[in-house]
Order: sequence, then structure tokens, then C-alpha cells
Amino acid sequence: MSTSTARFVRRIPEGEDRERLTCNDCGYVAYENPKIVVGSVVAVEGRVLLCRRAIEPRRGFWTIPAGYMELGETVEEGALREAREEACAELQLDGVLAVYSIARIGQVQILFRASLASPGFAAGPESLEVRLFDWDEIPWDELAFPSVHWVLQAWREAGDAPLGAPRGNPPADLRGTTPLPLRTSEAAA
Amino acid sequence: MSTSTARFVRRIPEGEDRERLTCNDCGYVAYENPKIVVGSVVAVEGRVLLCRRAIEPRRGFWTIPAGYMELGETVEEGALREAREEACAELQLDGVLAVYSIARIGQVQILFRASLASPGFAAGPESLEVRLFDWDEIPWDELAFPSVHWVLQAWREAGDAPLGAPRGNPPADLRGTTPLPLRTSEAAA
Ligand SMILES: [Zn+2]
Ligand SMILES: [Zn+2]
Repeated sequence: MSTSTARFVRRIPEGEDRERLTCNDCGYVAYENPKIVVGSVVAVEGRVLLCRRAIEPRRGFWTIPAGYMELGETVEEGALREAREEACAELQLDGVLAVYSIARIGQVQILFRASLASPGFAAGPESLEVRLFDWDEIPWDELAFPSVHWVLQAWREAGDAPLGAPRGNPPADLRGTTPLPLRTSEAAA
Repeated sequence: MSTSTARFVRRIPEGEDRERLTCNDCGYVAYENPKIVVGSVVAVEGRVLLCRRAIEPRRGFWTIPAGYMELGETVEEGALREAREEACAELQLDGVLAVYSIARIGQVQILFRASLASPGFAAGPESLEVRLFDWDEIPWDELAFPSVHWVLQAWREAGDAPLGAPRGNPPADLRGTTPLPLRTSEAAA
């Protein structure tokens, strides 16, 4: 993948109030916008579906089916697509369980509560394995990202009741600026 | 603002599965991601705050305080900033009222229910005027965007009750692909 950015410099385009990444050759302004991650906490008879990541970052760690939303789809379509790609699963979305901001990396995560629309799941190409966990089996020390922690707690607190307003970041990390734990791939088998 | 895109072509970068906007000269891949709009329905004693747009698109039409989220901020910070910029208002956010996808233009809108944290508001540089409307005074034919319609209805239906899961697109436009009405600036005074 060619991603040379050598010609890009930060400067303030005319009529704007902040620096933007601008190509010195052709003047193209590469607006750097927050990116949207869509995903789902999928429960089957009280157990939660998790995927063990086959790719970096955080290869070998467990996560919910989630990924970057693509242009041209809706948030719901994106969440369904990610579950298909990572867990070969067809979901029924219940509603938005959480909206998290990870300001450190310019990410907004829109995470649904979901169930399986049809039985069955399997590891897709980006997963080493996919399985259901009872609450007390969840591998808390081997979760890929802080927000996986957060959203599993939010899911547990919501119980079987109708969803309320989506949870936001926890008070301890309101802006999503806490770095990941230092260790990265050591959980990989 | 220099935004020459003449050198950019659509091609599939190595290792990917879809076309991306790529610079023919330097190989820079301009990922086109959905953009996030953050905003708020602000109510004061049952009346809704609306801003009449001083800028295109839809100059002269009425909207809620909302705009593009910036890199480095949270969704909540973005919604507060937009209310400051467009309505000189300090908000207290209650929770996420709606999450809309406008697939036609690659937008996700995260819209809060809010009140004023301190009294007072005024037109910012992007607004011609800012005022409060009783429900039966709302200028439905002069709203800037379909999602302003949608979110005002969602706000009305929510009443004073605690928020439930956020509303999504209405059934009549689940993907956000209905074009705007043809007329654009004719409501401008
Ligand atoms: Zn260039
Ligand atoms: Zn270039």
C-alpha cells in the first residue's frame, strides 16, 4: 500500500482557524477527522461472544466484533458487516448500548447490544477463534482495548432491561486518553 | 482554501478490497471515512432553541446547533463547542437522543438532549439569528435538513422522561438517502 506522506505539511488553510495536513505539491488538504468504530456486544443465553484477534494491533487479545465504519453504509449496517467478517455471525441489533470517545486516537465508538439472528458463528479471517464466555469466564487481562472492558461492564449493568440512554466514557477516562497497557502481543498463543 | 483534487484517482491499494482516492503523483491514499456531526436539541422551559444559518448549505434555514466533530475532542466536547460557536450558549448535556446515518453524504449524526447551563444565547458568526420556539411555532418548512425534522420529533416524543436507547433513522429513510428538497436558499431574508 503506497502511503507516502512526505510531501504533506501542517499549515492553516485560508479561511480556517487550525492547522490541516496539506500537500506541498498539489495543495490537497487531507482533513483528519475522527473515525467511527461500530460494533456489538452479542449475547447468547447470557453468554458473551468474543473474538481473539488474528491481526495487529493487539493480536491474540480478545475483543467484541467491531471495526471501522465504511463510507456509504449506516452505523447499523457497519455493525452487522463487522460481525459477519470477524465472527461469521448474523446479528439482530437491539439498540445503541454505548458511545465512547477515544480522543487519544481520534475515534468514536458506537456499540450496540445484539443477539444472534440465526444460530452459528465461526472465526473469520481476522479472528484466531470466536467463542462464548460466561460472565465469570471473561479473560479480563486479555481484552484488547479498554473500551471492551467498559462496554462489557455496561452490558452487564443493563441486564435484560430495555436500554436507557447510551453509556459514555467512564469517569476515570472521560476523554479516552489513557494509553494501552504496555504489553501488546504477549497473550498470543 | 486550496483543495485541488485533480491528481487524485480511484484505485484499489495493495492488500485492500475496495477503491480509495489515491494521489497519482505521490501515492497518498486519502481514506474517505464517514464524518461525525455532533449537536443538541436545547430546550428552555419547553421551547426549543434553533439557529438560522448564515452560511451555505441551506443559508437562511433553521437548524439545531450542530457541526463537524474535530479531531482531539470527545463527542460531548464537540456538541458543547458547536453550541458555543453557533448560539453563544453554554449547555448541560442530558444524554444521546438520536444517532442518525446519512449514507448519501457519508455522515453520522450524534445528537444530544440538552438544556442551558447558564442563561443567555446569541447569534454566533455562523448564525443569522438564534431564538426559542414553542412547539407549534417551529418553522417546519424552513428547517435546514431532514434530520432536524427527525430529531425535533424524537425530542417531542421523549417528553420529560429519562432517555431510552437513542432513536435511529425513521423507517421512511432508514439509510439517509433521500435528497434534500430542491429549493435551497429561498428562505433567506
Ligand atoms: Zn499532492
Ligand atoms: Zn500527492
